[in-house]
Amino acid sequence: MAAPLILVTNDDGITAPGIKALVEAMKTIGEVVVVAPDSPQSGMGHAITINKPLRLQQIELFEGIKSFSCSGTPVDCVKLANNKVLDRKPDLCVSGINHGSNSSINIIYSGTMSAAVEASLEQIPSIGFSLLDYAIEADFSAAKEYAITIAKQVLENGIPKSSLLNVNIPKLPFELIKGMRICRQAVAKWEEEYIERIDPFGKKYYWLTGKFVNYDHGEDTDEWSLANGYVSVVPVQHDLTAHYAIPFINGNWKF
Amino acid sequence: MAAPLILVTNDDGITAPGIKALVEAMKTIGEVVVVAPDSPQSGMGHAITINKPLRLQQIELFEGIKSFSCSGTPVDCVKLANNKVLDRKPDLCVSGINHGSNSSINIIYSGTMSAAVEASLEQIPSIGFSLLDYAIEADFSAAKEYAITIAKQVLENGIPKSSLLNVNIPKLPFELIKGMRICRQAVAKWEEEYIERIDPFGKKYYWLTGKFVNYDHGEDTDEWSLANGYVSVVPVQHDLTAHYAIPFINGNWKF
Repeated sequence: MAAPLILVTNDDGITAPGIKALVEAMKTIGEVVVVAPDSPQSGMGHAITINKPLRLQQIELFEGIKSFSCSGTPVDCVKLANNKVLDRKPDLCVSGINHGSNSSINIIYSGTMSAAVEASLEQIPSIGFSLLDYAIEADFSAAKEYAITIAKQVLENGIPKSSLLNVNIPKLPFELIKGMRICRQAVAKWEEEYIERIDPFGKKYYWLTGKFVNYDHGEDTDEWSLANGYVSVVPVQHDLTAHYAIPFINGNWKF
Repeated sequence: MAAPLILVTNDDGITAPGIKALVEAMKTIGEVVVVAPDSPQSGMGHAITINKPLRLQQIELFEGIKSFSCSGTPVDCVKLANNKVLDRKPDLCVSGINHGSNSSINIIYSGTMSAAVEASLEQIPSIGFSLLDYAIEADFSAAKEYAITIAKQVLENGIPKSSLLNVNIPKLPFELIKGMRICRQAVAKWEEEYIERIDPFGKKYYWLTGKFVNYDHGEDTDEWSLANGYVSVVPVQHDLTAHYAIPFINGNWKF
């Protein structure tokens, strides 16, 4: 059987250490093609580029791996890979390894996860990986091991239709990680704070900061798993309908 | 009782005709404050601005309405409004009226809907409105009527916790619209095509185009409602967990 074709992308940009780690992991199990942003795209969510042209440049970066840097967002990378780079549908799309958590509500702002969602919309099994360490010199060795294990499970045993995986890895050496747990997204949010400053021309500007607050005490959540030394695996859907709300509205509204 | 405080935003930019229509509609039922992007932000999804400062400028645009233009994305506008503009939590956030459909999978790419999602994350009842007409000279009169009706229902009768509404209005005169239907998001997708061109310097670039394809024949969907002359109202959730996939993975994977 031919080796599985694996598309690798990310949101930290093609030169980030996290994508290098993911390429090294994936090339042990398949044929890897990389299409990733030419610059950092954190916080881009599911943005796409509509109003300007996109550039795609083949580059030599990872030994023996066909790689392209793209001027667009992570979602643009997946669309361009499928339309202009790959000659067949990939067997798997992996995104990351993100420098920093994409657990809980972080998924909604995450370019890493949106790339994986986009692949899933194209019916490509897909996984986003994130390590709970923002440092540029973060140790990706445990994350690589789990990326291989989980990618193999997806290739061999599948995931349900219209779902993809959000995998977060705690900042721990491999031997201290207790294993992995399949869990739900915790109910949490960012409490923003905008730092207010004055520019050299006397005009005000704002800079986004904030802290992450977890309101969810469930032991079946990604936050619980990560806090307790497990890798969290959250299956994610792209149907956003709040089905439970339909009977409420039909019953309570007057129209 | 004090008039409800209504935050208005959009993704087509603060000077778009659609937001003017929405401001006119909302000021008939409450106290309106506008915080909207200073430039078009279509397709921005749930993007936020992390790596650069944001500007917020009070402007005179809508008579008697406090209005601010913001250099960021639609989600930035909602965050800044809550943090720096409003002195209390709004009773309602409305986004739009978008020039063009945000039905079905379009929601995932939509800055209009992401602004509404962000407000909902802050527990603010919220609604995104879109008219199925991209034209700058589109007729928003029917959309305004439905915006008033639906906003009143939300203020008076509520929507379930952790949900918001995605409202799309067909391109029809008011008297030809048959009413509204509470429905689910249709299973549909964009089939992309990238137009390939050569720039004046001999280098290739790509431009995203594509067509929307609806695979879903259900009569309980937004696409069916819109095609049959109804306003579609889809309740939307922001928990992305595919709960149905958890037992599958626990049962089928070997780990």
